[in-house]
Amino acid sequence: MSDSPQQETPVAETVQKQPREKKVKPPKEPKAPKQQQGSSAAGNKQNEGVDVKKAENFSEWYTQVITKSDFLDYYEVSGCYIFRPNCFYVWEKVQNFFDGHIKKLGVQNVMFPMFVTKRALETEKDHVEGFSPEVAWVTKSGNSDLDEPIALRPTSETIMYPSYAKWIKSHRDLPLKLNQWTNVVRWEFKHAVPFIRSREFYWQEGHSAFKNFEQAKTEVYDILELYKRTYEEILAVPVIKGKKTEAEKFAGADFTTTIEAFIPTNGRAVQAATSHHLGQNFSRMFKIEFEAEDKKSKLVYQNSWGLSTRSLGVMIMVHGDDKGMVLPPRVAFTQVVLIPLYFKNKDNSELETKSKTIFAQLEENGVRIKLDDRLEKTPGWKYNYWELRGVPLRIEIGPKDLENGVAMLCRRDNGEKWSVPLEQLTAQYVNEILDKIHNSMLEKAREVRNQRISVARTWEEFMTALNAGNLVLIPWRQTHKDDVVLEDLSEEERKEYDAKIEEEKKAEEYIKERSKKESAMLSDSDSNTGLTGAAKSLCVPLDQSIYPSLGDCEVFCPELSDRKPNKWALFGRSY
Amino acid sequence: MSDSPQQETPVAETVQKQPREKKVKPPKEPKAPKQQQGSSAAGNKQNEGVDVKKAENFSEWYTQVITKSDFLDYYEVSGCYIFRPNCFYVWEKVQNFFDGHIKKLGVQNVMFPMFVTKRALETEKDHVEGFSPEVAWVTKSGNSDLDEPIALRPTSETIMYPSYAKWIKSHRDLPLKLNQWTNVVRWEFKHAVPFIRSREFYWQEGHSAFKNFEQAKTEVYDILELYKRTYEEILAVPVIKGKKTEAEKFAGADFTTTIEAFIPTNGRAVQAATSHHLGQNFSRMFKIEFEAEDKKSKLVYQNSWGLSTRSLGVMIMVHGDDKGMVLPPRVAFTQVVLIPLYFKNKDNSELETKSKTIFAQLEENGVRIKLDDRLEKTPGWKYNYWELRGVPLRIEIGPKDLENGVAMLCRRDNGEKWSVPLEQLTAQYVNEILDKIHNSMLEKAREVRNQRISVARTWEEFMTALNAGNLVLIPWRQTHKDDVVLEDLSEEERKEYDAKIEEEKKAEEYIKERSKKESAMLSDSDSNTGLTGAAKSLCVPLDQSIYPSLGDCEVFCPELSDRKPNKWALFGRSY
Repeated sequence: MSDSPQQETPVAETVQKQPREKKVKPPKEPKAPKQQQGSSAAGNKQNEGVDVKKAENFSEWYTQVITKSDFLDYYEVSGCYIFRPNCFYVWEKVQNFFDGHIKKLGVQNVMFPMFVTKRALETEKDHVEGFSPEVAWVTKSGNSDLDEPIALRPTSETIMYPSYAKWIKSHRDLPLKLNQWTNVVRWEFKHAVPFIRSREFYWQEGHSAFKNFEQAKTEVYDILELYKRTYEEILAVPVIKGKKTEAEKFAGADFTTTIEAFIPTNGRAVQAATSHHLGQNFSRMFKIEFEAEDKKSKLVYQNSWGLSTRSLGVMIMVHGDDKGMVLPPRVAFTQVVLIPLYFKNKDNSELETKSKTIFAQLEENGVRIKLDDRLEKTPGWKYNYWELRGVPLRIEIGPKDLENGVAMLCRRDNGEKWSVPLEQLTAQYVNEILDKIHNSMLEKAREVRNQRISVARTWEEFMTALNAGNLVLIPWRQTHKDDVVLEDLSEEERKEYDAKIEEEKKAEEYIKERSKKESAMLSDSDSNTGLTGAAKSLCVPLDQSIYPSLGDCEVFCPELSDRKPNKWALFGRSY
Repeated sequence: MSDSPQQETPVAETVQKQPREKKVKPPKEPKAPKQQQGSSAAGNKQNEGVDVKKAENFSEWYTQVITKSDFLDYYEVSGCYIFRPNCFYVWEKVQNFFDGHIKKLGVQNVMFPMFVTKRALETEKDHVEGFSPEVAWVTKSGNSDLDEPIALRPTSETIMYPSYAKWIKSHRDLPLKLNQWTNVVRWEFKHAVPFIRSREFYWQEGHSAFKNFEQAKTEVYDILELYKRTYEEILAVPVIKGKKTEAEKFAGADFTTTIEAFIPTNGRAVQAATSHHLGQNFSRMFKIEFEAEDKKSKLVYQNSWGLSTRSLGVMIMVHGDDKGMVLPPRVAFTQVVLIPLYFKNKDNSELETKSKTIFAQLEENGVRIKLDDRLEKTPGWKYNYWELRGVPLRIEIGPKDLENGVAMLCRRDNGEKWSVPLEQLTAQYVNEILDKIHNSMLEKAREVRNQRISVARTWEEFMTALNAGNLVLIPWRQTHKDDVVLEDLSEEERKEYDAKIEEEKKAEEYIKERSKKESAMLSDSDSNTGLTGAAKSLCVPLDQSIYPSLGDCEVFCPELSDRKPNKWALFGRSY
């Protein structure tokens, strides 16, 4: 797999008042589309394309793209969805890539039960508060009540860590690096959006324990880099690595790192995956202690990290277009469709033979190809059919092409068409084209995103950028530092630190509240654009070198603090 | 992967009054073993071996083997277990093998929600009756009651088939072959036995739809053969392919095929995996219809098939010995352990260098090897440690061996030891040994099992064989025939067929009741052997050619029926 360029987010120095698409609707809970009643059994009417434009009604567009392409289906239990074969295939590809890489890091897969008792769930107070309203409870089996209600895992810290306490005795048992690929349940009552926010979803959760902070910290960033690579090298989606602010970090973590993706159509950011350093917060509660080399008993340092099927939603939102799905080649179940252009009242036998030969050659050499030689469908119908489903490359061969010894190729991502001599149409050639498609999808998405990152030093600049559907960098005072081990602080130092944390949280709360209020004052037509709601921090990007110097710049909203900013923080509206 | 010999179960003509191990306890719900309190942090006491013999207290032996080998752990919610890394690795290997093969058959993976509404669950009446007492219900989220209780899947027929009805319109949409790897929940109140019977377990469930019976039937047996290959080629466990009797078939199926494994120690059979033909029973209820080539609307024929983590329990029970786990080489996370025999007060540097070289060479060439060069442990301690964990092959090198240019090898399965010149110790050589170990584990298990299959023509022979801990073949009248499509029978034919089915069911009920009663009359000492409880049918073996001719033999218990037997049916006590 070729490396994607690692170039990060350069930004223009001034707020970009970027002309943006009007009439982008806010993402709403998409209703399950009505079943196509009375559609002919022969499937002639099943080829309905997407009938709204992405820029005009994003929410409806999304629903149509994922359902009409046979990717996902709605289900009777609201907030739960069916992953159809081409969809689950994408997830399998994500799994293969990430799982292969963590195994190289010495991570082993395990499986813990999905059930958790109330007592265990409530062991770490901050943590459970983050989840408790969304926890689903099993209370009956058959017709009998259970003695005690049992929760379905919203995440597995409290399920796994009692075992960690049991298994870890000595420094020789460390590091312990475990991962599981599971379903989790968060019974949310916010708008469900397929992939992005659902009641049951699939993910991996890694949970590791180390004897010191340094090792734990290293892993946090190793995993974050793998997450970035997964998005960029597999899903062709550019992401920004950063650290969460204190207000947005994982409940119970010392610090949270994140990769953030961007949906240009509605100007929203998406938290794409997170890698947390939990410090000793959980090891203290769950008594995960080890005998160190110096025979002293110590608490382990822990990380947890997760990547979910949300990634599939991001991929679709970023790449899809008015014709439907656009799948990155590395995750497409069908990478290439070969369509022979049969003519009525003509002898198509030579064309048929040649098509089958090409198909067989490419398939044998590892190209995931389909031959669409259905006689009852027109070529035009087939083009739409496969475009809707996002197949990256189409090969057409007509009788004229055959005479000239060429085939026509057409890229799904940009519509580019060109002809290729048949003898050049090898698996190697096709794979090179597929790689090219991958890279240009990624670079195009990166370019679009980069144009939509603004810098703001004042509230007015901030709101203008935000209402232009942009992500906004603001001067920020980040309290947490990677080279400080929170557990090592003296009581006094910790108090001082916590006071600063509170200040940081208040600054964010202020921005959230004020942006929400000012958004609410937008006219009706504006509120129809999806550009309403509070802005929140997405992350403090790790690579600050690509941004302008903070110079003598004041901290954003100087009324909040008299401390100097030390970082640019990225804010925006988000999913 | 080398093919395992396909040889089936030959049996002796007479009842074998096989001397059997006494004092085999009945499998009980094993309590979670007490935590090893006060074990030294340095782990010096963690190397406790299994302290009961497999033949003397099978249930306790099983609990110790799976927990002390760090394979599985108990969990706070009873009937749920933790799959530790070496355990989950076995399941990953099973998944890789089976998943690869079904993909070649054109099966695609999907993911349906784990939640199912009461209404959908109850659509197929026979089916839900089979599961309803074990269904776990979610009734609350956070502090709120749900409008309607929602069940956790015990299996997914009723979750998936409403979608099948929606997706399948035309014969062009068939066959539809989908599979998912999921967790399922059956809140049983019977004794939980890790892997064998638990409240949450992992499996794959395949669900396919065909336009005719013939195609469906072919798939049923293709999958059954893959199940057999998975057990034999991956887990080194021999199984018998057969068809379930009417009393034991899957609720809602026209017929069920099965592979049956055998645990010699307690004489119990285990249903190892099943492949069902559902006929049109579900398609009728869920209205899964298609327009056939002749434009007529028809119901699809369906199959469902599942293989679960029960397979891991069977593997352990069959292969384990008094020293602990014995892992088949293809599923062992660690296939080989290399132990350099360091001597105190001696220069071990040459030995160290050589060991590291051998380790690196084997590892680079794909052998899953560990180098145990811990200085604080003795070789003897290490032997026990790795034997308990079932590592298939041990390589030892001492200073003397080094002088002679050899290493000692020792097989876990049979204790065989031999020396090998170091230059011969290549990955190829080691892999050949590992294959040999696999094959001899399989053949040994097959031989043991074959000696424990008896033939009985009378009740007395039956009970004698049963109480010798054997599986028993009896003359049986099988009603179902593969070449009869039940859906094609006229009303009258169907009535006649159903009457025969009832007769077959009654015969089985009689055997069950009577064997239960007579078992209960066994003396206390006998009831302590695990050889109590009803016998039930395991299957009617597919390959009858290896058994004696039925000749003029009467049907078993002639008081039940005057029909002639047409098959040998395999009965036994089972899990």
